[in-house]
Amino acid sequence: MSKGIHVSATNAQIESMKDERKNPSFDSRSLTFLLYGGEKAVRTREEIRDELERRLGETDNNKIPHTYVRGDRTEQYHSGLETGRIVQSVAQDMQIFDFEDERQALLFAAYHREASPYGLHTSMFIPTLKTQASEEQQKEWLGKAQRREILGTYAQTELGHGTFVRGLETTATYDVERKEFVLHSPTITSTKWWPGGLGYTSTHAVVMARLIVKDKDYGVHGFITPLRSLDDHRPLPGVILGDIGPKFGYNANDNGFLRLDQVRIPLKNMLARFSRLHEDGTYEKPPHAKLSYGTMVFVRSNMILNGASALAKASTIAIRYSCVREQGMVQPKQAGETKLMNYKSQQYRLLPLLSHAFAIHFTGFYILDMYKDLLRRLDGSDFSTLPVIHATTSGLKAYVTTVAADGIEEARKCCGGHGYSQFSGLPTLFADYVPSCTFEGDNWVLFQQTARFLIKSLKAAVAGKPLAASVAYLKGYRAVGEGQKSQAKSGQDLLIPQVQLKAFEHRATRLIMEAAQLLETDRKAGKQYEISWNAHMIDLIRAARAHTLVVILTAFIERVEATTDEKNKRVLKKLCDLFCLYNIESPFAPCSSEFVEDSYFSPAQIRMARDNVHHLLSELRPDAVPLVDAWNFSDAALESALGRRDGNVYETLYNWASQTPLNQKAAKEGGVDVEGYTKHVKKVLEG
Amino acid sequence: MSKGIHVSATNAQIESMKDERKNPSFDSRSLTFLLYGGEKAVRTREEIRDELERRLGETDNNKIPHTYVRGDRTEQYHSGLETGRIVQSVAQDMQIFDFEDERQALLFAAYHREASPYGLHTSMFIPTLKTQASEEQQKEWLGKAQRREILGTYAQTELGHGTFVRGLETTATYDVERKEFVLHSPTITSTKWWPGGLGYTSTHAVVMARLIVKDKDYGVHGFITPLRSLDDHRPLPGVILGDIGPKFGYNANDNGFLRLDQVRIPLKNMLARFSRLHEDGTYEKPPHAKLSYGTMVFVRSNMILNGASALAKASTIAIRYSCVREQGMVQPKQAGETKLMNYKSQQYRLLPLLSHAFAIHFTGFYILDMYKDLLRRLDGSDFSTLPVIHATTSGLKAYVTTVAADGIEEARKCCGGHGYSQFSGLPTLFADYVPSCTFEGDNWVLFQQTARFLIKSLKAAVAGKPLAASVAYLKGYRAVGEGQKSQAKSGQDLLIPQVQLKAFEHRATRLIMEAAQLLETDRKAGKQYEISWNAHMIDLIRAARAHTLVVILTAFIERVEATTDEKNKRVLKKLCDLFCLYNIESPFAPCSSEFVEDSYFSPAQIRMARDNVHHLLSELRPDAVPLVDAWNFSDAALESALGRRDGNVYETLYNWASQTPLNQKAAKEGGVDVEGYTKHVKKVLEG
Repeated sequence: MSKGIHVSATNAQIESMKDERKNPSFDSRSLTFLLYGGEKAVRTREEIRDELERRLGETDNNKIPHTYVRGDRTEQYHSGLETGRIVQSVAQDMQIFDFEDERQALLFAAYHREASPYGLHTSMFIPTLKTQASEEQQKEWLGKAQRREILGTYAQTELGHGTFVRGLETTATYDVERKEFVLHSPTITSTKWWPGGLGYTSTHAVVMARLIVKDKDYGVHGFITPLRSLDDHRPLPGVILGDIGPKFGYNANDNGFLRLDQVRIPLKNMLARFSRLHEDGTYEKPPHAKLSYGTMVFVRSNMILNGASALAKASTIAIRYSCVREQGMVQPKQAGETKLMNYKSQQYRLLPLLSHAFAIHFTGFYILDMYKDLLRRLDGSDFSTLPVIHATTSGLKAYVTTVAADGIEEARKCCGGHGYSQFSGLPTLFADYVPSCTFEGDNWVLFQQTARFLIKSLKAAVAGKPLAASVAYLKGYRAVGEGQKSQAKSGQDLLIPQVQLKAFEHRATRLIMEAAQLLETDRKAGKQYEISWNAHMIDLIRAARAHTLVVILTAFIERVEATTDEKNKRVLKKLCDLFCLYNIESPFAPCSSEFVEDSYFSPAQIRMARDNVHHLLSELRPDAVPLVDAWNFSDAALESALGRRDGNVYETLYNWASQTPLNQKAAKEGGVDVEGYTKHVKKVLEG
Repeated sequence: MSKGIHVSATNAQIESMKDERKNPSFDSRSLTFLLYGGEKAVRTREEIRDELERRLGETDNNKIPHTYVRGDRTEQYHSGLETGRIVQSVAQDMQIFDFEDERQALLFAAYHREASPYGLHTSMFIPTLKTQASEEQQKEWLGKAQRREILGTYAQTELGHGTFVRGLETTATYDVERKEFVLHSPTITSTKWWPGGLGYTSTHAVVMARLIVKDKDYGVHGFITPLRSLDDHRPLPGVILGDIGPKFGYNANDNGFLRLDQVRIPLKNMLARFSRLHEDGTYEKPPHAKLSYGTMVFVRSNMILNGASALAKASTIAIRYSCVREQGMVQPKQAGETKLMNYKSQQYRLLPLLSHAFAIHFTGFYILDMYKDLLRRLDGSDFSTLPVIHATTSGLKAYVTTVAADGIEEARKCCGGHGYSQFSGLPTLFADYVPSCTFEGDNWVLFQQTARFLIKSLKAAVAGKPLAASVAYLKGYRAVGEGQKSQAKSGQDLLIPQVQLKAFEHRATRLIMEAAQLLETDRKAGKQYEISWNAHMIDLIRAARAHTLVVILTAFIERVEATTDEKNKRVLKKLCDLFCLYNIESPFAPCSSEFVEDSYFSPAQIRMARDNVHHLLSELRPDAVPLVDAWNFSDAALESALGRRDGNVYETLYNWASQTPLNQKAAKEGGVDVEGYTKHVKKVLEG
């Protein structure tokens, strides 16, 4: 009853999509090269992608993607184990081993790295061994881990304790007689909870636990802990493991729990590169507390790029669909219905999202450059840029993940009813993306880390001390304090990069000054600093957010100015202007009120910005599809009937639906779901 | 390996929750009565709820809710068929038949009405027969439908056509010889797509199709169409049916597709209460086009109340959890960690959400009163209030569903990592709630319907004509045009209801005037009205949104003022102030810039509003748990380990996890997931 239909060589939607590509103002392929670091890098990406899609059996876009033929939770986990194994085999055969290899990042980003039960083995277990294990420890474990003879995870979070590491309860008590640690979970809240692959996959974990020696607590350290027998995978004595249950997304991953009941491991299992414990129980402190920040910066830079990618994916799907979907009429007697994308509201919702994806993407590369510079400096024991990079990436991670998560959902809503179908690709994208707002530091907490740096920087500015480049604008604090106004006299003025940056810098400076003033007033009144910080948290977070947008706009402007191809440059400039001015004028853009609440911009200037935005939307509209094409997502990567490159959305929805197990089974039973009918519907009908 | 743990009589979390309830400033139970229309109504709700939970086997909150033991899609559908059958049996036994019965609304709202495969039978099929079928038709079908001898759905949306009814392609061609209609789906895009229960449950549908008589198209009409044999449930000849595949949520419902291949039904099957076709093919027009608006208003009023309920549920979960979850420290040397709820950022994120739930809830009742008045008027053929009610409910539906959907996700993020677990209850709540933003009219389209009314009303105001009460404020357009400013001199002034309302009315008036001005300028330049409307859509939508907030604030203020119990009144006043001032001062509140971009509020006034908000947060903090308690959700209704009334969150997370099929099976196999290990993990380990 629910057979699929013949796929047309062409139809109205396919023709409509062809029209969208007829007259781009720039060369889409050349923009792809610009986005991903040149032609060679793009070809490498494509090789990896094609090989993966071939092995995963995802090359036929008329076949329902396996994501949408989900079994129960257990089957989903097994399918994750299988997919992960295939991805690993590609990595092996293409010799992509190093997590910091950009190809590896791509490999995993494209294929749901964290959703793989082996994900943390690659992204956390091996890197931890590399950076925190001593040479002897690496000799014992690193090779085995790289050859997958052991599978590890990283167990830090506990049921009752999240990012606040000092709160962890798990103990590792040193038994000086037997030269062993006794690992123990003293309470229910100390149960390790959330680590990926912990439930039924991993054989080992780096367990973060409080080191206790002769009743003294030395704080949290890492311990290489065998969890399961390498013979039959059974949990070792005293080890209680399981899966934490279903989640919003990530259901192919066995995020797990772990309870340790007086589990003994030898002295040599404590990670010993920096701090170490001697046989007699003497403790040796790490030389520098900031050594592990490097990895954190790297992980966050990647999160920026992943955020851009997720947002670009969502924009690709929604924009392509809006360019073939017709609904209603702008004019009462027009021929045929109007494409969604020709409604101003759709342009106003989608094109700024796309501009954010570009802005964030370029910022990601900008930060990667900072990271590479940091690595060079750290090699020479130069820690000077660590605070600014840490502050910058904290704020960026918080801003980017929030914008991307909200943007994916907005793009989904832009697809109307069909956006609610899993076949749109958007529900899965959203559910798998949103944990980014929480993991690697909750966004509202991270902004405060940026804020601490900004308050310090403002003090330095006032004291006339040198400032890091990214906060050099704070030198202008006096003019801000005197209530400077934008000097823009026309819409044209608002397109000048210096004018744009100045507005963003003014906002950030003002908010940092206001927050600092609130803290200072409290200090004079004798309030404790920490209490005062909590009271003014929102002001501090706003300041951090405003500064983060200065960083992004700077990165975007620099990228536009460095672009040599004139056509690319022209379209990127439009996107950059849209990004900037939308954030200023749109009442729907979070925190846009901050540009006007101190009258920095007058009502007339806001109207100019708004007119510019509407003009930019009209200018960018004809380039919409070529712009999303430039992101170069394959149909398989999008997993979306609506986002198909060729525009054939309706036949795809129909054909994918006909391939679901429910329909396939009913087709064999005369168009009836016999079990549901017999057990339930029949009874209802018969009363 | 993953046995559950003993549930403690008490623990730190349970004690912590008890503390939260020790000193409320008001009586929580009395607020419950106020919320739901008095003690009797509350007791009726509780009776229904208790009976339902008993029959559904949901009374033990230490048992994992069946929602989280999801099988594959087919099993989910079967479980929907079963749950729906139980809900029906409660309705039968408690004699709750009428969809417009408030108890029925409650019954379905509480237990996922639309997710039931029988949902549309009750909410659309029966009401359509009641309102649009002739007496003879009712005699033939209504009794059968009410006794569930037939199960119906409502098939309007098509694969290529959504809310734009005129675009529908399905045809019903009258064959005057045989006195039959021939129903046909001429294209793939004409396939009916989305109707609930259509896939494998329903036996009948009201099919919306273009009536064609002698080559003349009379537009879209409804046809009662048998789909399946009442003997064996097989699709009737020419009828092709199936399930449309997995969705974001609603997976217990077989939202379906339907293709009709020259299917013949008799003349008497065309819905004939208003328009009818005579045997000879003579068509009789309906007397008044607005007759079906009554039901639409009712459905939207219910959506307002459901929005409040969904938002209140999410707030309940996040606030309760934040009151027992401890994380980090405000002060460096404090005893123990700080409750999440004591961080200013958490208060700033959650308490305004809660205030919105109250605001929306009271607005829902306010609209229900308008609806009852409308019914009385319609009985006397008085259509005068229809335009204003239609405009008001359109804007409210758009605003409320947006705020509730965004609010649920924000509440989820406020729960940190555990918010991502399905056991938080929030992922399911979100996924099942979000389609509300799209169905019954896409939000961005609905705001435009409100805008049309506002533009007309402004013209009436300028012409000195009488205005509906809800837009009477437009009479003040002159002062607005002259750039009036808020006269508030102190924070205290900003708590005066008239001052608050005036600010909201000023904003709405200004935006309506600006939008009207843009249209007028275009008109003078000779632009076509519809083109001009599309160009200024965003301005029009903003105007409609601003007006909607006037309606809500008015309803909230009226409810506060009508409250007799002094303690209830005091706490509601605080919530009302928070709702109002947060929307003015917070840069995170959408469109707050509109209060400052014309300098209606000065920077000093915004700072006063902000100080008030922070003061209100501190005042409301001790009442947080009693306030969410007042919404009176049972543990079973929340389906949340984090939102449990007693605060026992961690033991619940652990115990529910131990009950998942994956863990239960592994427990029997020595703590190993034997299938996953043998098929996949072992292979990886062995290389």
